[in-house]
Amino acid sequence: MAAEHDADSGGPESGFEITAHFVTVVTAAAYERDAPTLRRIVRRLHPADLADLLEQLPDEALRRLVALVGPELPAEVLPELESGCREVVVSLLPADFVGRALAELDTDDAALVAGHLDEARLEEALAAADADTRHAVEQGLAAGDETAGRLMQRELVAAPEFWTVGDAIDHMRAAESQLPDVFFEIFVVDPAYRPIGSVPLSTLLRSGRDTPLSAIMRPPQAIITATMDQEEVAYLFRKYHLASAAVVDDAGRITGMMTVDDIVDIVQVESEEDLLRLSGVGQSEGAVTFASAVRARAPWLGLNVLTGLASATIIALFGASIEQIVALAVLMPIVASLGGNAGTQALAVAVRALAARDLTPSTATRHILRELFTGMINGVIMACLLATVAQIWFGSAGLSLAVGLSVAITLSLAGLVGILVPLTLRRFGADPAVSSSVFVTFATDFIGFLAFLGLATAILL
Amino acid sequence: MAAEHDADSGGPESGFEITAHFVTVVTAAAYERDAPTLRRIVRRLHPADLADLLEQLPDEALRRLVALVGPELPAEVLPELESGCREVVVSLLPADFVGRALAELDTDDAALVAGHLDEARLEEALAAADADTRHAVEQGLAAGDETAGRLMQRELVAAPEFWTVGDAIDHMRAAESQLPDVFFEIFVVDPAYRPIGSVPLSTLLRSGRDTPLSAIMRPPQAIITATMDQEEVAYLFRKYHLASAAVVDDAGRITGMMTVDDIVDIVQVESEEDLLRLSGVGQSEGAVTFASAVRARAPWLGLNVLTGLASATIIALFGASIEQIVALAVLMPIVASLGGNAGTQALAVAVRALAARDLTPSTATRHILRELFTGMINGVIMACLLATVAQIWFGSAGLSLAVGLSVAITLSLAGLVGILVPLTLRRFGADPAVSSSVFVTFATDFIGFLAFLGLATAILL
Repeated sequence: MAAEHDADSGGPESGFEITAHFVTVVTAAAYERDAPTLRRIVRRLHPADLADLLEQLPDEALRRLVALVGPELPAEVLPELESGCREVVVSLLPADFVGRALAELDTDDAALVAGHLDEARLEEALAAADADTRHAVEQGLAAGDETAGRLMQRELVAAPEFWTVGDAIDHMRAAESQLPDVFFEIFVVDPAYRPIGSVPLSTLLRSGRDTPLSAIMRPPQAIITATMDQEEVAYLFRKYHLASAAVVDDAGRITGMMTVDDIVDIVQVESEEDLLRLSGVGQSEGAVTFASAVRARAPWLGLNVLTGLASATIIALFGASIEQIVALAVLMPIVASLGGNAGTQALAVAVRALAARDLTPSTATRHILRELFTGMINGVIMACLLATVAQIWFGSAGLSLAVGLSVAITLSLAGLVGILVPLTLRRFGADPAVSSSVFVTFATDFIGFLAFLGLATAILL
Repeated sequence: MAAEHDADSGGPESGFEITAHFVTVVTAAAYERDAPTLRRIVRRLHPADLADLLEQLPDEALRRLVALVGPELPAEVLPELESGCREVVVSLLPADFVGRALAELDTDDAALVAGHLDEARLEEALAAADADTRHAVEQGLAAGDETAGRLMQRELVAAPEFWTVGDAIDHMRAAESQLPDVFFEIFVVDPAYRPIGSVPLSTLLRSGRDTPLSAIMRPPQAIITATMDQEEVAYLFRKYHLASAAVVDDAGRITGMMTVDDIVDIVQVESEEDLLRLSGVGQSEGAVTFASAVRARAPWLGLNVLTGLASATIIALFGASIEQIVALAVLMPIVASLGGNAGTQALAVAVRALAARDLTPSTATRHILRELFTGMINGVIMACLLATVAQIWFGSAGLSLAVGLSVAITLSLAGLVGILVPLTLRRFGADPAVSSSVFVTFATDFIGFLAFLGLATAILL
């Protein structure tokens, strides 16, 4: 059968890839209500691949598939789904199935899924889950969005300091069912359950059974508090190359752990947020509808109308000059556009450096000077280029001088603006990526129009 | 002593932070040739923190510090340093020290450090290292940049299928010195050394000593070839939540492994590359000098001069209209700027979706339609806004109509251009982020000027 063939053809070499053909086959099976085929596919695919498939199905095919074989979906597929698609899938699943799925998942995944349910569905689902799950999910949801408390899992292995390697291994064999699905180290705690060190499993395994944990544990390299923002958590993981880390409550007691596989996602999401924000796309643009895209982008375009009008007043001021020399209208957008691009370059570098913590108070002066010099050098290069073209095109030495000087001035200032705007936003505690580019392009447009039209008027008229 | 006090004051709560004051204290110690203080600091700091510190020191202080206490730097600090700073540090260290450092590091880190040495230094250093290190580093360097073969480490734990849990644990205790520093799973191999599965350490530890590995191993979820690009590797790790994965050669034999802590860095670097490329910054802008910043950015600004001139020819075509109605010169940059921003928004969303593999051939039509509709709706909103302002400002119904219509047209097309440009680049095998924004803003400027000036001329003159 074609669907099976496709499901098998992605060899382990490259990971499995959902092909357009496979999506068509599954769509057809859903429309034909071919439950046996769908069941085989759902059972055979890795949850991550199954999620990819579900996300790519047309809406109606997705609904039919869930109606036919929904209760056979593995619980692990739910956290893998994009939030929009997950909403659709969960809304079609029986509440008791969702409750059992929450119980089956690690607590961080359960909280992720539960966080996207509407209140009525969540209550139904939790009513169908066991008390432990209910408690863990409720605690996870009580923690702030994008904090360690929300993202951590409660399952972990903790051991008292006086245990030996043998004690720890025996404990893990005995407590098998309560262990996290996957973990990388065991946390050594004091009697008050505060972490005092950790032993990576790879260290545990190469040590003799009689070795005390206290002899092989390493001190905590970074302890994460439940209220810590995910960006800070990701920074610590990256910096110290952590595989996992303990999360502690206000009293310093261990309440959960975060593992590096979640960090990979956080790093991706945080970088994407910077990319989208720098491009003027609001953060809500996760969903699939175009209404959400309109909402995410319209405010910035609206602001752009206002800043555009402010820059236009500069042009209007020099209306008389433009009436006399129409070449000014021809050249002025180039000056402004070069300034905008130079500013955006400096801005992107600064936002990246801030995120990577390369741009710190100790290095700020060095970075600012570098932007100023870079802007000046590139300004002089582009000034020569554009002045030459203007001379050939319009044959006016005064006009060429005006365009050259204004490009050099605009690009030098653009570099400064590009780094000072995000630095200032950061100083006032704001996200340096949000709305930076509005400020920067407004400033460079304003400077570009003013410098060019002002110089041209002074030189030529 | 102030330096010591500072080195201690960053509690484990938040990870250690290099303060500006601490940098000043260390700089002073370097200038005063205060070797004992520097030695204490170098020994006490985590290599990641030490790298942060060295990167923030002024050049001369860095040189003096390395001259005084260089051979006491831990080997692990070298891979943590930025390439520019590492070059300076390594050039000041004795060759035999660098050789020993390469031997001490895991092979992936050794290859990273060796890859940035100039040929003469590398030969000196390798001559001082042992044969194993030499071989591993040479093999790593022979692999392509940004491939799994370059990034993997050769140390790993492999076990034959017929071993039990007890065999594996005994082996690890015996082979202690040859094991990787940290590892998360052992790879089960067939007699030809091809990976047939893996056992996470957490699974190994909860299984009884007599359990055969074949009973608890899971099939390889993704096998990585040595020539695979790092972006593809990172995608597989993210998708399947891998902690580590085997890297195989052409014959399918296991030759190394990659671990998730390296993936975190790759994800960060790849996202940063997209961010910088979308902002017109070339990829070479890693180094600290402003000459490299000029080189990374000038080509794009130069291209921008050319596209700006091409758009300017449109304006020149309508020179007569602008001479008659100077308001055209006032309003036309707003239309073009709105188009550029709407195009950039669509572009950023498309580049993100391509990187996350949400935008695939099966979903392309859906994404393209979404961009078209989003552009149309936002176009109509901004058209109403700008037409109203134009009406109040200039009191000309014809001009308001022209500006409104042209904004609606430009924004609709900007959305399409924003998604079609990266899709086309991807189809031809190019990086969808590189030079996308040049094409997009050129197209939107061109469309914006043409639509506005053309419509205004048709309606008003």
